[in-house]
Amino acid sequence: MKASLIAIDWGTSNLRASLLDAHGGLLEARSAPGGVMAVPDRRFAEALLALCGDWIDAHAVPLIASGMIGSRQGWQEAPYVACPAGLPAAAAQLVRVEVRPGAVLHIVPGIRCIGIDGVHDVMRGEETQLWGAGLAAGDCCVLPGTHSKWAWLGEEGKVERFETFMTGEFYGLLTKHGILGRLMAFGTARPETFDAGVRLGLAQHGNALHVVFAARTAGLMGDIDPEGLPDYLSGILIGLEIASATARHPQRSVTLLGDDDLCSRYETALGIAGVDTRRASDGATTRGQWRVALQAGLAKYMA
Amino acid sequence: MKASLIAIDWGTSNLRASLLDAHGGLLEARSAPGGVMAVPDRRFAEALLALCGDWIDAHAVPLIASGMIGSRQGWQEAPYVACPAGLPAAAAQLVRVEVRPGAVLHIVPGIRCIGIDGVHDVMRGEETQLWGAGLAAGDCCVLPGTHSKWAWLGEEGKVERFETFMTGEFYGLLTKHGILGRLMAFGTARPETFDAGVRLGLAQHGNALHVVFAARTAGLMGDIDPEGLPDYLSGILIGLEIASATARHPQRSVTLLGDDDLCSRYETALGIAGVDTRRASDGATTRGQWRVALQAGLAKYMA
Repeated sequence: MKASLIAIDWGTSNLRASLLDAHGGLLEARSAPGGVMAVPDRRFAEALLALCGDWIDAHAVPLIASGMIGSRQGWQEAPYVACPAGLPAAAAQLVRVEVRPGAVLHIVPGIRCIGIDGVHDVMRGEETQLWGAGLAAGDCCVLPGTHSKWAWLGEEGKVERFETFMTGEFYGLLTKHGILGRLMAFGTARPETFDAGVRLGLAQHGNALHVVFAARTAGLMGDIDPEGLPDYLSGILIGLEIASATARHPQRSVTLLGDDDLCSRYETALGIAGVDTRRASDGATTRGQWRVALQAGLAKYMA
Repeated sequence: MKASLIAIDWGTSNLRASLLDAHGGLLEARSAPGGVMAVPDRRFAEALLALCGDWIDAHAVPLIASGMIGSRQGWQEAPYVACPAGLPAAAAQLVRVEVRPGAVLHIVPGIRCIGIDGVHDVMRGEETQLWGAGLAAGDCCVLPGTHSKWAWLGEEGKVERFETFMTGEFYGLLTKHGILGRLMAFGTARPETFDAGVRLGLAQHGNALHVVFAARTAGLMGDIDPEGLPDYLSGILIGLEIASATARHPQRSVTLLGDDDLCSRYETALGIAGVDTRRASDGATTRGQWRVALQAGLAKYMA
């Protein structure tokens, strides 16, 4: 079938390209480790052409990208759309960069909002996934990750508001560079220590800078063995996140969107917190990119 | 005046030795960067002899040490004394290691307690400072640092209970290894952004994993310039710590003990939180070591 769009998911650490047919269906997918932070000397055009220059040659179709590629550290900054943020507003504000003469990449802007704490919040990439996830007005969607996002959907698929939690980054920093990691052994899943961590984090979310120290003292005191400590810390942090989010925005159910293993962790933790979960269907990123491209008139749906 | 004790403060990153007279007064002080983590191949005796072997030769007085040197990563593990933890219990439980034939180092044990969250907490080194700080029953003493400690004193100078906050470690990890540091410029003090951070941390202590992200968005949105971001983050973290501690243990005043610059930050932040502060007098570490040595019969007070 004829190709109609190259959809690119370009984040901090990964670069993924999908060749889509005239119904937005996947013809072929490729990926490379060339995330925004890994591209030497900002040679983004080169990185992209290395991955899918042959698609551009063969199909001459439009290109669209979402993710950190539109950040200040990326190819070209795509200014944020303010919440409530809908797909039409984003489609009207795509940023164009030339990949090579005759081939233009359209970068989807990120979105921003001001939280109930009066502070700015931002996302880049997740907004496109949200628009592709088939969510309903009133839904709350949780996207676990380095910077975990909780997003609340409004009418017409708009993102009403959202909140970022640095859960995944904290886990990485504490285990890789911090004192907590020194007692840990990695590689073995320990569901029971994960659960214990979740319960502690949920109960002590007003006390985050203290309670993570439990992942050291539990090791020092021999309460948890080195293999159990990584899951204990993971549980504490995810518990803190869930309690923080739900204390201010009570939730009976949420939709999980993202990496399978991480979604399983959140499923377990949310279950302990008494929150029902469902999973978003696969392919939300590409479907969101397809929808933005359609809205912008870049791609045309062929019936 | 005749020397009577060599008192050694041996932490994670520093090694300090004080030669004390027969009244516990300071005759001479030396320090080296050879903290517990910096001593190659655990050659602790060598490091100590390099710093003050001549004192041992000249005076043949007892040696006492407190701090991380008594941890599992240190010279020899000194098991923790349980709270309520008094100086006599610690003095009865000194761990002896031979520096060289005829010279023994006495390591002060750390202390442990179980918090109201049901989780173990530990300190090593700060307990000796607390015993040397001249605190009264009922006092709350805050020792800011990598692992900030809040300690509550009971009768007879016992430490009733305490709580650790990983405030300093979080600041270091986030600025050195995390995404927040990327927008920051270091070196310029910005008291007004520090205050703004403190207010945010105090108000949002139930939401720690989210609110630290403000130190990124405030930079992205141009609300705070790169020079102001380190103090903003520092303020947020200290505000989180103070609100967490005082929400569960309301405090009208605290005694600050530690590094001058850090104590000034906490003074400001505690003032914003409505908590009065006083500073412990200098020399608490050495005075605590002297008191433990007296109690253990290692040193004799000469009137």
